[in-house]
Amino acid sequence: MHMHGDSKHAVVLLSGGLDSATALAAARHEGFGCHTLTVAYGQRHAVELRAAERVSKSLGAVEHRVFELDLRSFATSALTGNIAVPKDRAPEHMSSGIPVTYVPARNTIFLALALGWAEVLGCFDIFVGVNAVDYSGCRPEFVAAFERLANLATKAGVEKRGRFCIHAPLISLSKSEIIKLGVSLGVDYSLTHSCYDPAAGGAACGRCDSCKLRREGFISAGVSDPTVYEMA
Amino acid sequence: MHMHGDSKHAVVLLSGGLDSATALAAARHEGFGCHTLTVAYGQRHAVELRAAERVSKSLGAVEHRVFELDLRSFATSALTGNIAVPKDRAPEHMSSGIPVTYVPARNTIFLALALGWAEVLGCFDIFVGVNAVDYSGCRPEFVAAFERLANLATKAGVEKRGRFCIHAPLISLSKSEIIKLGVSLGVDYSLTHSCYDPAAGGAACGRCDSCKLRREGFISAGVSDPTVYEMA
Repeated sequence: MHMHGDSKHAVVLLSGGLDSATALAAARHEGFGCHTLTVAYGQRHAVELRAAERVSKSLGAVEHRVFELDLRSFATSALTGNIAVPKDRAPEHMSSGIPVTYVPARNTIFLALALGWAEVLGCFDIFVGVNAVDYSGCRPEFVAAFERLANLATKAGVEKRGRFCIHAPLISLSKSEIIKLGVSLGVDYSLTHSCYDPAAGGAACGRCDSCKLRREGFISAGVSDPTVYEMA
Repeated sequence: MHMHGDSKHAVVLLSGGLDSATALAAARHEGFGCHTLTVAYGQRHAVELRAAERVSKSLGAVEHRVFELDLRSFATSALTGNIAVPKDRAPEHMSSGIPVTYVPARNTIFLALALGWAEVLGCFDIFVGVNAVDYSGCRPEFVAAFERLANLATKAGVEKRGRFCIHAPLISLSKSEIIKLGVSLGVDYSLTHSCYDPAAGGAACGRCDSCKLRREGFISAGVSDPTVYEMA
């Protein structure tokens, strides 16, 4: 156990990207001692895992863990397999069809793992950086349904010894609003990584959907973009 | 993809135990082509994994997969750690407190993985051998809540291209009723394994909670118990 005194604690899902870093900052701002969880799901980029560790440390998490989950046995998506990451897509094409970067049931699986760890830690708050505005399509109804499930799934929930709360502080924010929030909370976005197809040294490609959304977010927020791009 | 013609398909969670073998038989009886999924969660017993494979084959599943999930990074339970399995407990003590054999958020995590695979396969039916009568405490409300979540969590569900159904055919059955059902569906229970603490050769201890529930189930069902016990 890693509880200190009577302060409140939370599990925070952390990918190494911009959104989950902001969710962690929001949890810290609300006074939670944070236990950050990164799921390594056949990701091709160790750079993402290093980013998550950096972000966790910089925002003063209590501890950081990496959970190995080999989704490759199911998935055929670009993030876990060998399908090419699309580049230079116009925004209107990013949401067409199932994106190749989609991992089956990812949010459900990650939240289930976070719930498992929260149960072990004896805490009842989980933060997740999902939002409904980008193309991952995570809706408030999903978050509410998971919260309901969590309180039926665990002994603590069923016995009313605690009440699980799934915090999704970015759920209705645009990328630009997320960046403004993060800057106000002291997030150092230079530590985060968003690119689906980084160069060997870790520089962002600047051309995949994720890079484009991120770059446009900084421009729209009027915040200087600290990302190192492969082609400056 | 493993779909054949226009027959219907399902993912079935299979532990190697008596309950999930019966759930698989029920799915086969309803005409589903079955894709069986065993989650290897830091289980100490390879004997459970071999039992699952045997059961899957004997009941004519389309395919069987083992998903490696190392819950040891979270859990402190007897099934994943080094706490001793309790023996010779009276039934009234089996449900007292959190059993040491409890794995945090296990059903949620396993169903989330089954959902991910179902999504990849393009099927919408998931069978799980949970029941509300034993001491695992999985209630119908939980199953309904997961089904609701599944239809909000996936693109197929949200876009109404399909409607996920979580089948829990044993949810309200006693162990003895489960055994009677399985026998009527042709389950060979000698292939299944329930013991939490088997001998090196795979024989059941006969004394842990799981062995006792199983043994009493056979007696109560009036069915000859095919289990090989360590101490006959």
